[in-house]
Amino acid sequence: MRNIALRLRYDGTRYHGWQEQKNDVTVAATLQKALTRVCGHPVKAVGCGRTDAGVHAERYCANFKTDARIPADRLPLALNALLPPDIAVTDAVDADEDFNAILSCLKKEYTYKIYNSRIRDPFYADRAYFYPAPLNAELMARAARHFVGTRDFAAVRSVGTETKTTVRTVYWYEVTQSGRMLELRVCADGFLYNMARAMAGTLLYVSEGKIGPDELPGLLEARDRRLTGPTVPPCGLYMTRIWYDGPVGRMMSAD
Amino acid sequence: MRNIALRLRYDGTRYHGWQEQKNDVTVAATLQKALTRVCGHPVKAVGCGRTDAGVHAERYCANFKTDARIPADRLPLALNALLPPDIAVTDAVDADEDFNAILSCLKKEYTYKIYNSRIRDPFYADRAYFYPAPLNAELMARAARHFVGTRDFAAVRSVGTETKTTVRTVYWYEVTQSGRMLELRVCADGFLYNMARAMAGTLLYVSEGKIGPDELPGLLEARDRRLTGPTVPPCGLYMTRIWYDGPVGRMMSAD
Repeated sequence: MRNIALRLRYDGTRYHGWQEQKNDVTVAATLQKALTRVCGHPVKAVGCGRTDAGVHAERYCANFKTDARIPADRLPLALNALLPPDIAVTDAVDADEDFNAILSCLKKEYTYKIYNSRIRDPFYADRAYFYPAPLNAELMARAARHFVGTRDFAAVRSVGTETKTTVRTVYWYEVTQSGRMLELRVCADGFLYNMARAMAGTLLYVSEGKIGPDELPGLLEARDRRLTGPTVPPCGLYMTRIWYDGPVGRMMSAD
Repeated sequence: MRNIALRLRYDGTRYHGWQEQKNDVTVAATLQKALTRVCGHPVKAVGCGRTDAGVHAERYCANFKTDARIPADRLPLALNALLPPDIAVTDAVDADEDFNAILSCLKKEYTYKIYNSRIRDPFYADRAYFYPAPLNAELMARAARHFVGTRDFAAVRSVGTETKTTVRTVYWYEVTQSGRMLELRVCADGFLYNMARAMAGTLLYVSEGKIGPDELPGLLEARDRRLTGPTVPPCGLYMTRIWYDGPVGRMMSAD
């Protein structure tokens, strides 16, 4: 049986995440409907991560099994003809038979976008978190360095998903500013539930002076979610990069 | 009585234009509801142009009369607190008593955005016209030069609005490409109904080889709408600049 990996891009505004409740419109359900029509049999897609309602993906990976004989490079146009305009399949490739979009993932990058201006921008209404008070990006960047490394991130996760351990490795956490847009880019081997949004909220607390930039190591050690910043809204969050070995890795890292 | 001019920015996706039918949600009706609450009396706003359903504005000007004593510089925050997130008032200024957003306008610029790629981009679903075949931007730019000048533009307008003359002056028509986004920027002293979109559609016909780049002068002279290109979809159209004299002119041209 073929195991096909897809590269997707979607505006998550209308969706209840990749896959959540049975009766909500999800990206997975929408994609599976198109895949089922193209393949001619019911298709179940495995996604590279559970994204929450309203979270976006500049890159996302999903895989599915099929006996359909359509060449992989024909799949994007065939699927896009059936998908709504806020989801696009940009590439497809035949993967190894044991490839699994979530289990084979080596690391992922999420970017949290903050539109920092007194006046909101209508074109970022559902695409960035509007934060009207001035932000101290330098202080946030200084604090963010403490997130990097292999640490217990229990202090910045929401309880809700079972996980064996709350230890993760963060490879980088970059704070960049371009005009009124602040971007927080974090790459890790895995993310706990709401971790990227709680990290962003904690850096906002640093900018607001509620947490000192060098208090983060102590707060992580305390493992107490109540001592860190809030889980900021999903509209600012984007899955931006994802790494795999082999042909899927090459597909996902291409420009 | 005070005459206040507002600078606005809006994502027109959800709106039936600035002002059209009585029962549709329009930008004007939405703004007037907020103005009425802030001013404490019914307010009628005059817009700088009739934009169609789905057309966006990076800059838009409206004026209204009031006796309310709120300082102009407080209006943006007061109004934005009441407006939906896809409309923002970015500035406000007290204008001369005879200022009128449409009648005082010296010239306007519209930009038509074309996302030119085999695969559509979900983040431009309602924000640009998706055109999957390769475009010849050079040929389009060459043809566009024929639009510049004082000419009769009857060949690129839809009948529907009464107008004394179909002669307008186009100051520039620029075709620029940045990555997969093609932008057609046209500045004129006034626009006939659907003129910006019919000009864009005509340039697409040029790129497709259906019209020669130097056939445009003859087509304009013929004044026959059936011989030029289609009226392309509204989602790609943005009002981008507008010029006035005096304090409103300074407000509208600031970055």
